[in-house]
Amino acid sequence: MNAEIIAVGSELLLGQIINSNAKFLSEQLAEVGVNVYFHTVVGDNPDRLKEAIETAESRAQLIVFTGGLGPTKDDLTKETIARHLGTSLEKDEDALLYIKDYFKRAQREMTPNNEKQALVLKGAKVLKNEQGMAPGMFYAQSSINYMLLPGPPSEMIPMYKNYGRPAIERALGRKETIASRVLRFFGIGEAELETELMDLIEAQSNPTVAPLASDGEVTIRLTAKHESRESAEKLLDQSEEEILKRVRPYFYGYDDTTLMEETSKALKEKNLTIACAESLTGGMFEAQLTSISGAGGILKGGIVCYSPEVKKKLLDVSRNTIAIHGTVSKPCAEELAENVREKFDSDIGISFTGAAGPGPHEGKDEGTIWIGIARKDRETKTYLLNLAGTRNGNRARTVKYGCHFLLKELKNEQE
Amino acid sequence: MNAEIIAVGSELLLGQIINSNAKFLSEQLAEVGVNVYFHTVVGDNPDRLKEAIETAESRAQLIVFTGGLGPTKDDLTKETIARHLGTSLEKDEDALLYIKDYFKRAQREMTPNNEKQALVLKGAKVLKNEQGMAPGMFYAQSSINYMLLPGPPSEMIPMYKNYGRPAIERALGRKETIASRVLRFFGIGEAELETELMDLIEAQSNPTVAPLASDGEVTIRLTAKHESRESAEKLLDQSEEEILKRVRPYFYGYDDTTLMEETSKALKEKNLTIACAESLTGGMFEAQLTSISGAGGILKGGIVCYSPEVKKKLLDVSRNTIAIHGTVSKPCAEELAENVREKFDSDIGISFTGAAGPGPHEGKDEGTIWIGIARKDRETKTYLLNLAGTRNGNRARTVKYGCHFLLKELKNEQE
Repeated sequence: MNAEIIAVGSELLLGQIINSNAKFLSEQLAEVGVNVYFHTVVGDNPDRLKEAIETAESRAQLIVFTGGLGPTKDDLTKETIARHLGTSLEKDEDALLYIKDYFKRAQREMTPNNEKQALVLKGAKVLKNEQGMAPGMFYAQSSINYMLLPGPPSEMIPMYKNYGRPAIERALGRKETIASRVLRFFGIGEAELETELMDLIEAQSNPTVAPLASDGEVTIRLTAKHESRESAEKLLDQSEEEILKRVRPYFYGYDDTTLMEETSKALKEKNLTIACAESLTGGMFEAQLTSISGAGGILKGGIVCYSPEVKKKLLDVSRNTIAIHGTVSKPCAEELAENVREKFDSDIGISFTGAAGPGPHEGKDEGTIWIGIARKDRETKTYLLNLAGTRNGNRARTVKYGCHFLLKELKNEQE
Repeated sequence: MNAEIIAVGSELLLGQIINSNAKFLSEQLAEVGVNVYFHTVVGDNPDRLKEAIETAESRAQLIVFTGGLGPTKDDLTKETIARHLGTSLEKDEDALLYIKDYFKRAQREMTPNNEKQALVLKGAKVLKNEQGMAPGMFYAQSSINYMLLPGPPSEMIPMYKNYGRPAIERALGRKETIASRVLRFFGIGEAELETELMDLIEAQSNPTVAPLASDGEVTIRLTAKHESRESAEKLLDQSEEEILKRVRPYFYGYDDTTLMEETSKALKEKNLTIACAESLTGGMFEAQLTSISGAGGILKGGIVCYSPEVKKKLLDVSRNTIAIHGTVSKPCAEELAENVREKFDSDIGISFTGAAGPGPHEGKDEGTIWIGIARKDRETKTYLLNLAGTRNGNRARTVKYGCHFLLKELKNEQE
């Protein structure tokens, strides 16, 4: 079964809102093994909507509509579909009762145009709207399935999960299970990763192997089909093992996790505290770490040391280091990491100092960045980065590298 | 001229990423008066892409493609278009030089598949990519215009603004000028603003008046058409004046500016320095301030004081204050702001302390947040917020309020 998602709404074509429904539904349909080959967005215009429906009918067996089920004159999805399919709309009494009750609960007067929301395609299975008023529909004609969902994600998502997905699964009569898994990598480019895994990518069938790059990270999505969940997961395990044999040093986690989440988890597990000296990152590392609930147990605190004076005065970087090596240097990164660790009495101290750009800083090229990691009674480590992005791209990348090196540090210790 | 936007990428159809490019481009095209009637998303498949192109050609005179210009085997947008239009691809020497230089700066080995990125449609106007490697293109054939843009928004947006939009304006040969202006507000809800301006919104024609809310801010987009740029701008001026007469206290800037950018500008203009004590915001205020180039002259630095001990030890908050009032209190916000100002020897000290959530903190309800602003030889001011968002929503909103109160402080001083 191939699917097409048609979002109806002029506000999408004006760029006033983003089509997040298509993302959600695509993910959901991939999970049940339905291929989505096209998304279409069309405005509140019956002729163009009809055109979009006809195009979709020529290439899909499931057409999922979002939007255009509301009470106003603009809302014309079900009217257009009914006319196109030569069927009629009829009042759904349950939906009408629910709408009336909705107004009563909200203590608002029900205007007559709201009754229109209770009209459904004759013979359609009604999908209940538990978060709003307009019901959804699932309707089949000439071996094509039409699913109509409301536009607001807060209504669409629960409706799809509770009633839409089961309706699709019934229509599929599927025995097969689909399982998928995302592997996340950092510190390796997409082209390099692809080169390492070329034979696996070319030979892929089940599971499929799909690399994707974004924000300096690369992910690989593995998707397997099999009779049982268990055997599909086993296929994923085998494929993952084969991949990690080659590129394990860059692997950091699964699915929706982030480098910072993994860092936070690793620190928590080892019961280690951290303090930070942030120059070019200006607090970004700590802001990200504290965006995860429970950071109180990990982060002692930190100093944003944007100026050389603060580095000297509040973080005791020696006058000599700054005079001889400058602030963008290995010795400065070392002293910052060591001194912030001592000042905050934490297990780990991490420092970031460098030239974010635009332009060079203290004679060092933009993108030249040092990271320091200090531990009690161990040798302090430093890492040099040469980044080629924009100012803020470089800063964000620096924070990711900080997590990457911290994770390595904590993993090595285990082995 | 009608336009269609075609996004190319299987990752969109799998729901791995959202089509934010279509939103941006739709907004931009509306601004130059081009109607967008359809968005289409298609995967990395040459046959289906060809089908999408043919459908678009039947109903649009401008087809804007995003994605599929990269180095990997999946990237096939320009190849498919070239084959479909019966033209060829040729190496663009400038683009190739730029790509080679990009790898050199990043000190990475250039793999051969990266050369493919320098291929462009023969006869196309090349659109420079200043943030990445793959160049864009503008190409006309049989009175249809094809614009090819890269997929990553960080590359696509500046390319469109600097080279894409001018190319479209040239192609339009438009006599009428369209001018638009966005007014930005903070501290007032959308419904409240709409009520204040209802008569203006209802009577709108030229300029049009479109309010929109997002992330706790409200914007009003004014769009005017007239023969000359000058007269269109004059229409905008009149409309702006009328609006600000009513809601000026909430107005903070124009177009794409942010509260932090305006704060940074105001501090720079007055030649004032700042230091920050960040508890619940965990460095977010400083990270945002330093995301703007030139922060070195404004931000002395700051302390992330996530724990009560750091507040006492590094920021000298009195034992009494913490014992009696707790850290989520007016006195704590006062002492933090005053002491961080003194410690970093800055003109202004700002502090953030509160319960971000989830759940209460020290017996204070989640969303209870204090902001302190200290100045030399003046009385320290404090502000209490009661926010109702998620943990990270509350933290982001707190940073915005910090800017809002700082801007008020600096403006009042002027008057």
